[in-house]
Amino acid sequence: MADWHELEAALAAQIRGERLAHTYRVLETARALAAGLGADLEQASTAALLHDYAKAMSPADLLAQAEQRNLIVDPAEEVQPHLLHGPVAAALLQEQGLVTDRAVLDAIRYHTTGRAGMSLLEKIIWLADYVEPARNFPGVDRIRAEAESDLDLALLHAIENSIGYVIQHGWPLHLYSVHARNWLLSQKQ
Amino acid sequence: MADWHELEAALAAQIRGERLAHTYRVLETARALAAGLGADLEQASTAALLHDYAKAMSPADLLAQAEQRNLIVDPAEEVQPHLLHGPVAAALLQEQGLVTDRAVLDAIRYHTTGRAGMSLLEKIIWLADYVEPARNFPGVDRIRAEAESDLDLALLHAIENSIGYVIQHGWPLHLYSVHARNWLLSQKQ
Repeated sequence: MADWHELEAALAAQIRGERLAHTYRVLETARALAAGLGADLEQASTAALLHDYAKAMSPADLLAQAEQRNLIVDPAEEVQPHLLHGPVAAALLQEQGLVTDRAVLDAIRYHTTGRAGMSLLEKIIWLADYVEPARNFPGVDRIRAEAESDLDLALLHAIENSIGYVIQHGWPLHLYSVHARNWLLSQKQ
Repeated sequence: MADWHELEAALAAQIRGERLAHTYRVLETARALAAGLGADLEQASTAALLHDYAKAMSPADLLAQAEQRNLIVDPAEEVQPHLLHGPVAAALLQEQGLVTDRAVLDAIRYHTTGRAGMSLLEKIIWLADYVEPARNFPGVDRIRAEAESDLDLALLHAIENSIGYVIQHGWPLHLYSVHARNWLLSQKQ
C-alpha cells in the first residue's frame, strides 16, 4: 500500500475544488467517529480520503469501467451510473496498487449504497459522507447527534432518509440500500 | 372453477364483518377500473372477491402454511407473516379447486407486495385494494384521480406511498415492492 502522501497526490490528480474539500471534511468526520468508537484510525482515514476517487468520471466512463470488470449488481446502476463511483474507485485503487486492504476497499465500494452486513468501517464512511460539516438538509442535525450515541440508529435513519430522497426524485432504488435498511432494522429487534 | 355463488359462500366461511365489507368495496372498485380499461371483468371480479381469502388466518398459521409450500420469497415475510396472506390465499384457492385461472391466482398472490412485470389484472387488484371508497389517508384522492387517467402512474405513486408508510412504521421493506416500484419507474422512461 502506498504511503499517505502518495495517496493524497493520487487523489489530487483525480478530483479537485469542492469535491476535494468535501473529501477532507469527510476525512475529519470519519476520524472523529472512528476515534469515538475505537475503530482503526488508519483504515478510516484511508477509506475516507479515497471514497470519491472516481467521482469525477463521466457516467459513460463509470459504466464502461464497471462493465469491463463485471461490477454491475443492480439495474439501477445502468440508469444512474453515478451509483458506480464507489465500486469503480475500489477496483481502480486495487489495480493501481494504491490500496490492498480489503476492508478499506469495501468501505469505498459500498459508501453510496450500503449493503446488508456492513462492517463498522463501512458504517463510519457511509455516515461521515452523509453528515460532514457542510451537509445541510432537514434532519441532518438529528442524525449527527445520533451518530455520537448510537451509530446503527444514525445509519438506519440516514439510509431511510436517503431512500425517501431517491423516491422523491424519481430515481431507481438500489436494492443494496434496501438490504442495508432491512438488515439494520433486524439487528435492532 | 366454482361458480360465483360458491365462491361467495367459500369466502364468507373464511372472513366476515368489516373484512367482508372491504372485499365488496374492492370488488366494486376493481370492476369499475377493469371496465374503464377494457380488462376482463370476470377475472377482475374473481380476483377482487377472493384477494383477502386468507386474511383472517393468524400470523403463525400463515407462516406454517407458507413454509409447507415453499412460498417464502423474502425474509420480510418471516418478520411480518401478514405479508403472506396473498400467497397463501392463492395456494389454498388453487388446492381447493375454487380457482384455476393462473392470472387470477397471481393477482391474488401479489396484491400486497406487487412485483416487477405486474399484469394489468394484478395492477387493477393492487390499486382497487388501495383506493376502495373507505380508504382515507393523505393523498388517496390524488391516486384515485390518477387511476382514472393513468393506471401506471397511480400505481407508482401508491407503491411509493406504501414504501414510505412501511419505513415510517419501522417494518421491513418487501423487495418485491421495491422491484415493482423500480419497474414502473423504468416503464415510464
